Amino acid sequence: MTSHDNSELQMERIVFFSDAVFAIAITLLIIEIKVPHLEHDASDRDFWIALLKETPKIIGFLFSFFVIGAYWVGHHQIYGYIKRWNNGLIWRNVMFLAAIAFIPFSTAFFSEYPSRFVPLFLYALSFSIAGFLETWQWRYAVRKQLIDETLSAAGIKQHTLHYSILPLVGVTAILIGFITPLLSGFAFWLIPILQRVIKRRFAEKPEDLEVTNNEITGKN
Amino acid sequence: MTSHDNSELQMERIVFFSDAVFAIAITLLIIEIKVPHLEHDASDRDFWIALLKETPKIIGFLFSFFVIGAYWVGHHQIYGYIKRWNNGLIWRNVMFLAAIAFIPFSTAFFSEYPSRFVPLFLYALSFSIAGFLETWQWRYAVRKQLIDETLSAAGIKQHTLHYSILPLVGVTAILIGFITPLLSGFAFWLIPILQRVIKRRFAEKPEDLEVTNNEITGKN
Amino acid sequence: MTSHDNSELQMERIVFFSDAVFAIAITLLIIEIKVPHLEHDASDRDFWIALLKETPKIIGFLFSFFVIGAYWVGHHQIYGYIKRWNNGLIWRNVMFLAAIAFIPFSTAFFSEYPSRFVPLFLYALSFSIAGFLETWQWRYAVRKQLIDETLSAAGIKQHTLHYSILPLVGVTAILIGFITPLLSGFAFWLIPILQRVIKRRFAEKPEDLEVTNNEITGKN
Amino acid sequence: MTSHDNSELQMERIVFFSDAVFAIAITLLIIEIKVPHLEHDASDRDFWIALLKETPKIIGFLFSFFVIGAYWVGHHQIYGYIKRWNNGLIWRNVMFLAAIAFIPFSTAFFSEYPSRFVPLFLYALSFSIAGFLETWQWRYAVRKQLIDETLSAAGIKQHTLHYSILPLVGVTAILIGFITPLLSGFAFWLIPILQRVIKRRFAEKPEDLEVTNNEITGKN
Repeated sequence: MTSHDNSELQMERIVFFSDAVFAIAITLLIIEIKVPHLEHDASDRDFWIALLKETPKIIGFLFSFFVIGAYWVGHHQIYGYIKRWNNGLIWRNVMFLAAIAFIPFSTAFFSEYPSRFVPLFLYALSFSIAGFLETWQWRYAVRKQLIDETLSAAGIKQHTLHYSILPLVGVTAILIGFITPLLSGFAFWLIPILQRVIKRRFAEKPEDLEVTNNEITGKN
Repeated sequence: MTSHDNSELQMERIVFFSDAVFAIAITLLIIEIKVPHLEHDASDRDFWIALLKETPKIIGFLFSFFVIGAYWVGHHQIYGYIKRWNNGLIWRNVMFLAAIAFIPFSTAFFSEYPSRFVPLFLYALSFSIAGFLETWQWRYAVRKQLIDETLSAAGIKQHTLHYSILPLVGVTAILIGFITPLLSGFAFWLIPILQRVIKRRFAEKPEDLEVTNNEITGKN
Repeated sequence: MTSHDNSELQMERIVFFSDAVFAIAITLLIIEIKVPHLEHDASDRDFWIALLKETPKIIGFLFSFFVIGAYWVGHHQIYGYIKRWNNGLIWRNVMFLAAIAFIPFSTAFFSEYPSRFVPLFLYALSFSIAGFLETWQWRYAVRKQLIDETLSAAGIKQHTLHYSILPLVGVTAILIGFITPLLSGFAFWLIPILQRVIKRRFAEKPEDLEVTNNEITGKN
Repeated sequence: MTSHDNSELQMERIVFFSDAVFAIAITLLIIEIKVPHLEHDASDRDFWIALLKETPKIIGFLFSFFVIGAYWVGHHQIYGYIKRWNNGLIWRNVMFLAAIAFIPFSTAFFSEYPSRFVPLFLYALSFSIAGFLETWQWRYAVRKQLIDETLSAAGIKQHTLHYSILPLVGVTAILIGFITPLLSGFAFWLIPILQRVIKRRFAEKPEDLEVTNNEITGKN
């Protein structure tokens, strides 16, 4: 009885530790936006200009907030299926969290120099590595039978494809960036398109319904 | 059985991840107050003056601590009624948390220039957006029937009005700020007044008692 | 059934939100210790001197770590008895957490100028306010009958005295500091002495045994 | 019934508070990596060089991420066996967490001056103290019978040896560092070797199987 309780607490600790790392990485993004320095006799217009200069950083903050948010949602989904853990899973999770914790730095670098290739490269790379490590963690859990055994092969495949979108888009952004950094941001518009394609492809088959059995039907 | 446990853990993760973001945003407020630099031969009087100069920042810290605290209390109330979740709710929650995570920056900017319009505008705006997103999240949960079905229509309405106070006051502060920034702070005194008005209006009707059934009667 | 689960989750959120604020405040203490700047041709001796100069900050870090740790232990004890919550308790808790979140700033100020009165005053004041708010929260929970009803009057009194030690010592440190700041640190040696006195006084009476029923007997 | 729930929550708070401190310390590592400053007319080559200069800090980040990760895994294992708590355990845990919270500072110092003895000494020392305090906590829990009573003496011994590896390696790194700092990093390669040795030695005896009964067999 007590053992069972502890074993549940052990599983909870893995997800809550991950949640805390996610929460800190996502909130640390804000400390990269510094309060602009203005003279005492600065006009309101000077203030607006100073605020406008922060815009790339604010956009960077919002964008990375949603990127880390998306990885958290993915982690939340994956651990919704994981029923058992082992050391291999824990260490893959630590590696994934290291990639997440790195994002505030690559975001700050990219937001500081939004039109340059090297910061974009590092940003898209950190973004892709996080996505790759999330997919890897999922595949490992599947291979080692750590997940809910009622999940169908098609459901597993849908999840794998879904988690592969973010790293794939990151790599595409890098490739576009080799030609022109300013355009590579468009790669990110692929995310909702690819998500829709995967959803539609699998929605046709009724046997995959269990993929969404953790969610109620009323979606926006 | 195991599925049920996991589904509960899934719900817990949403609130604990939110709690962690709240906790970090609320605690990060302090790192904006920098230790004043003083010479070795500075007198005690110099130290008191240096501390006095930090007063606007300390007031800003305390004020934003209670603002984020109030949003946390609201979130705690909302999720006291939420029984189910879906992706739409999760993403609305992530958007709300982005607004919360932004407050340490707008607080720091406002505390640095407390008598200027632009920082006040940004502060009241971030404050209002957070409040609007909290109310939106509540309305979404109501509309998609994610909440406890025993809550009456009047109870739901009371909550909606209650969560609308903070963004309403933020917008009022902006409007007053267009005339004179220094006076706009008075808008915040509307918060307890409006809360009292809403409470009284609904307290008259006995069928709304369940609104407070999570709280015991002994209040200060 | 579901309601019950939620009500438990509501209670858990209060303590986990508090734990997260404690954890962030306690860990933020380290970021006040900056890496010393040294030239490339600096000798090992220069490095040792640079490290030695950080000693007051390292002591400040360790001291405040144990102060916040002690408040966490107190909070952990208090909420070990709290069975119910209301809005009054939540807001008293938020006020207490604001005092905890302030400690990294007052620690940094004090560690920077360890021999001056004003930083010592602010440090001991923030320290005392946190302790006062913790005791106040405990008294409120007792008065509003939010605690375990099996706890005896003597047990309650012992706890009240126990939580009063830290603010009392803080005030003593301020009073000694008025005469000589360097000696006021000795006030903190009162903490273990007073704890022992209270423990002994109550240990004589067998009816207070339930005060420690959450702990097993084997203590160091 | 309610008492039991609370007692479980009390245990959970100890581990979740620890998890939060771990998560913050591990994520704070990133804020030591500062965005490099570059002129507007800097070439891509300048950017690559600037990024290359950050490499020791990035390696330091990754290395300390895995060190803190390893201590978290150890803590997770220890508390998987701990069934009861007392004040002695709580305070030993607070001391251990203070050592963990110190690591971001010693990492930053070491990453700034990777070829110097003093930063290496401080780094390996903080690393060793954390490991020593973790082992001490484990031994305390064993001695005070706070752990699962079904764990065999051999299992306990295996754990003790396992937790001793990290501090032992830290001390070895310091000793090598006295001769040549640049080589002391090799001491860390002892970690996987020693882990394997301990595992093999105990794997021969069938009565120690329960040591790993929290993990499923499928490991990488």
